[in-house]
Amino acid sequence: MNTHAKTGKLIGVGTGPGDPDLLTLKAVRALGEADVVAYFAKRGSNGNARGIVGPHVLERWIELPLIYPVTTEIHKDSKEYRESIAGFYEESAHKIEKHLENGKTVAILSEGDPLFYGSYMHLHVRLSDRWPTEVIPGVMAMSGSWSQTGTPIVQGDDILTVLPGTLSEFELTRRLADTDAAIIMKVGRNLPKIRSALAAAGLLDRAIYVERATMANTRSMRLAEKTDDEAPYFSIVLVPGWAGKP
Amino acid sequence: MNTHAKTGKLIGVGTGPGDPDLLTLKAVRALGEADVVAYFAKRGSNGNARGIVGPHVLERWIELPLIYPVTTEIHKDSKEYRESIAGFYEESAHKIEKHLENGKTVAILSEGDPLFYGSYMHLHVRLSDRWPTEVIPGVMAMSGSWSQTGTPIVQGDDILTVLPGTLSEFELTRRLADTDAAIIMKVGRNLPKIRSALAAAGLLDRAIYVERATMANTRSMRLAEKTDDEAPYFSIVLVPGWAGKP
Repeated sequence: MNTHAKTGKLIGVGTGPGDPDLLTLKAVRALGEADVVAYFAKRGSNGNARGIVGPHVLERWIELPLIYPVTTEIHKDSKEYRESIAGFYEESAHKIEKHLENGKTVAILSEGDPLFYGSYMHLHVRLSDRWPTEVIPGVMAMSGSWSQTGTPIVQGDDILTVLPGTLSEFELTRRLADTDAAIIMKVGRNLPKIRSALAAAGLLDRAIYVERATMANTRSMRLAEKTDDEAPYFSIVLVPGWAGKP
Repeated sequence: MNTHAKTGKLIGVGTGPGDPDLLTLKAVRALGEADVVAYFAKRGSNGNARGIVGPHVLERWIELPLIYPVTTEIHKDSKEYRESIAGFYEESAHKIEKHLENGKTVAILSEGDPLFYGSYMHLHVRLSDRWPTEVIPGVMAMSGSWSQTGTPIVQGDDILTVLPGTLSEFELTRRLADTDAAIIMKVGRNLPKIRSALAAAGLLDRAIYVERATMANTRSMRLAEKTDDEAPYFSIVLVPGWAGKP
């Protein structure tokens, strides 16, 4: 006799930037209700999001790591890369759908906020039109960065521009010169280019560098004091606004 | 005999956008440790942030509402307004400092994230150089808005621009036409102007209107279906990016 004819449910869970205490009450509750917990990771690692929820792991979870295909030798703009990664997202959505069809509640972990540059989005657009779906927002890495460094970021009528560090130096410079405040994401090996763009826009002295915001091994400093030798992909540069600050 | 020679501590607590379950574990812990809980509010109201922490209120708290001066008859750009509001922030900082001098832990509630357009910032810049200060980031109203409506906002190399609805129609149009995704804050009575700017930038069909995100009385709809008659000040317009969405 089937007494548990549950309907499958998809939950995108924002885990926040790194400190496990920055999980929301709602995220913790969702983890407690999940049957299956999925997360993106590189081969040989469980990924940051799975690390962040460490204190809330349940024995009964079916864990479903979604391991990115190895693409280090293929250029990101090539047809080969795009097809490989699209195939991976299709296959991941298919694996999750099998669990949804079995009536499971599937939580997909997403570092920061699920719908803000997150891989979760690739599953959301493939599944949310067919399954009951809830998205639980999370504290974003940029919030973690400006809070940790005590940096007021925008006030009043300030405009904030969020820029991927992958943009060209010309685009970065043009946009930095035309905003009150900026966040530059995906710093990593784009750091020398970002530094040049900030200098050209006259903002280098104002810029703050933060890596692994709110994590145990976080570091932050004025960008002018940071060398170009090494920066993790998930480091962030803050250019605070609020010019009229008292 | 003084057995409690505590040092005063200031904590800026982000309460998230409205749903009390979107408080972080860290925020809940800070509320449990606070002696004094301060919050900005308009006369006759406790304000949203105090409402959000309702389930965590402690008997022993000294509550310190900071009531904005009545300024409805003064223009926001006038010298009179600026002096009145600066005096209010000075006085508020002074009240809080008295508690810090008495060794109290003072939590200042801030809807959303404390350092993102929040009034908390005015106290932070007046006190954080003299007192141990911690800022606890919160889920922002914009995250609550795109999560609640299941709207992927930015992916890959997308640029996100956060615009106050108080900008001129020209500035809004120019910037909307030159970004991948946008968030327009402080909508309220700026809605007709925002609508015109979105139409001029060819984005009206893409725009989503959200009021009181994640609160019990939230509403959301395509902006094209929203009338101009009424919108709360804290409503938000989303213009999603991710043009290459599958």
